[in-house]
Amino acid sequence: MDNVRVAIYGVGAIGTNIAKFILRKRGIEIVAAVDISPEKVGKDLGEILGLEEKLGVVVSSDASEVLFKSKPDVTLHATGSFLDKVYPQIVEIVEAGSNVISTCETLAYPYYRYPELSEKLDKLAKERGVTVLGSGVNPGFIYDTLVATLTGVCETVEKIRAVRSLDAAKRRYPFQKKIGLGLSPEEFKHKLDAGEITAHVGYAESIMLVAKALGWKIDKVEEIQEPVIAEKDLETQYFKVKPGEVAGVRGFGIGYMNRKEVIRVELVAAVGAEDYEEIIIEGNPNLHWRNSLGIPGDIATVAMIVNMIPRVLKAQPGLLTMIELPPPSAVLGDFRDLVKKDV
Amino acid sequence: MDNVRVAIYGVGAIGTNIAKFILRKRGIEIVAAVDISPEKVGKDLGEILGLEEKLGVVVSSDASEVLFKSKPDVTLHATGSFLDKVYPQIVEIVEAGSNVISTCETLAYPYYRYPELSEKLDKLAKERGVTVLGSGVNPGFIYDTLVATLTGVCETVEKIRAVRSLDAAKRRYPFQKKIGLGLSPEEFKHKLDAGEITAHVGYAESIMLVAKALGWKIDKVEEIQEPVIAEKDLETQYFKVKPGEVAGVRGFGIGYMNRKEVIRVELVAAVGAEDYEEIIIEGNPNLHWRNSLGIPGDIATVAMIVNMIPRVLKAQPGLLTMIELPPPSAVLGDFRDLVKKDV
Repeated sequence: MDNVRVAIYGVGAIGTNIAKFILRKRGIEIVAAVDISPEKVGKDLGEILGLEEKLGVVVSSDASEVLFKSKPDVTLHATGSFLDKVYPQIVEIVEAGSNVISTCETLAYPYYRYPELSEKLDKLAKERGVTVLGSGVNPGFIYDTLVATLTGVCETVEKIRAVRSLDAAKRRYPFQKKIGLGLSPEEFKHKLDAGEITAHVGYAESIMLVAKALGWKIDKVEEIQEPVIAEKDLETQYFKVKPGEVAGVRGFGIGYMNRKEVIRVELVAAVGAEDYEEIIIEGNPNLHWRNSLGIPGDIATVAMIVNMIPRVLKAQPGLLTMIELPPPSAVLGDFRDLVKKDV
Repeated sequence: MDNVRVAIYGVGAIGTNIAKFILRKRGIEIVAAVDISPEKVGKDLGEILGLEEKLGVVVSSDASEVLFKSKPDVTLHATGSFLDKVYPQIVEIVEAGSNVISTCETLAYPYYRYPELSEKLDKLAKERGVTVLGSGVNPGFIYDTLVATLTGVCETVEKIRAVRSLDAAKRRYPFQKKIGLGLSPEEFKHKLDAGEITAHVGYAESIMLVAKALGWKIDKVEEIQEPVIAEKDLETQYFKVKPGEVAGVRGFGIGYMNRKEVIRVELVAAVGAEDYEEIIIEGNPNLHWRNSLGIPGDIATVAMIVNMIPRVLKAQPGLLTMIELPPPSAVLGDFRDLVKKDV
């Protein structure tokens, strides 16, 4: 059996780490790379990854051409958070006959923000016989797939609360920037409203995914993000934060059913915050799960995108969500073993 | 759309609770009940459940006849732990054209202990166009499906340890009996060896399920169970335990790859033991998840068996395991909404 053939669409921070991770894996190879950045186009991917050897994969800005030529089994897409912006890119991939796994946060449950685009994309994917999945660590796992999975032992569920707290100082530059480190509270609010920073994207998508898994009909979703204000001088590898400036973000998504809060997902991403996740399910039985080590977001996103490859290659065509596929798990053996149709 | 039609095969402690749970759910109904006990055969299921009204479902000892007549979409099977013993029952269900979800522990990963029966059953299920699944809380979830799912965020995994600790005093009589409460340590050993008590069944099945999900090739599995000895007088609703007698069981399953321990699942089920689960994954990243409330086994088994119904009704035919289906989640709405083919 041939190696699983992968294209990388978006050779930024995440795409680069995805590529490096795949190079360490068995039964899988990179056959194409797409990016629009003039500094990257025309260069060998190995050079961009800082490797000593070339990989024989030249970064191209012409996705259609390179995908049609290289015939990847799956394209790992990591360029943006909002489906309306990246929709033409996803369509290019699907039109080329490749399955898609994307980090695009709003694609994790696209029917919430983009019902029409979702229907079009589902139809196109089915026509082309490929699967499209939005995944990642959050949305994609902590607030949704994992939460839904943990309720599997429950006869009843009244209310769900999922919390993710992380020390922003440990994250890479783009993350620290998108949560507004060092801004004044006014700048934070202005830039967030203007879309210049996003902080976390996907509270609503996670809520809707859980609700769909459980069969809950959500009648309203609220999303709120506020700055965490520094009380003393703080410093990360990239930012200096003075007292009164933004040290991070605190955000919520709340899902209501019959006007009652039933799902709450909470984020604290701030310099010096504790690293942990906590999932509290009120029902029969009550559950209180906590990961005391915290899940490092960048490693986890890369891992999840790549670990979902066998699931997507074996799935039926169409636009799917994480809860419709078998659960993710680390791929530690040869990818070809997990992709065989009879396994 | 019609209700989902369910048959209960085995109206014992678990089967009874499954039936009661289903009666509280929407879009699902019980159409048949099978048991061999002379005290139950011929009685209305409502009577056996202690309800005031009859359900119009008479318990039958002739599974073939009642299943052919009632045409259940799925039969929930809860009679025994070992596939060789219950195999003829599962075959009856499959021959009648019904999907099967069974609490049979060794069916959770039947290829380990019963490779030939597994192949026969898979072939038969495919011929009849039905899905067969072994599920439950453990094996089926805590030591396996959940563990595999938690590794989804990992790039590498070196070693896994899953611990379940529970206070046996809170469990029902058959559970307290099967872990040997009140026996002498010699009696415990004798009865365990003779199969008169089983304690926990399924350490190996859980290990093999996780290994299959991750693509690990396990070369040896060890299973060990030892009595926990009382140090003082203990008492449960059903047993009195004197110092020196058996107060519970401590068990392990260890999976080795290349002669190195890579998966360890541990159980402590003893009077007065703390209720919790803990899943520790050594890899990149390290994870340390803990449920500080503990999952009550009986509720959870019943919930899991019923919550898997929509997954099984939408699955391809054949003998499947939990890691090949979408993750479990509580079914809180109408079962019919989750069973529709296009959802």
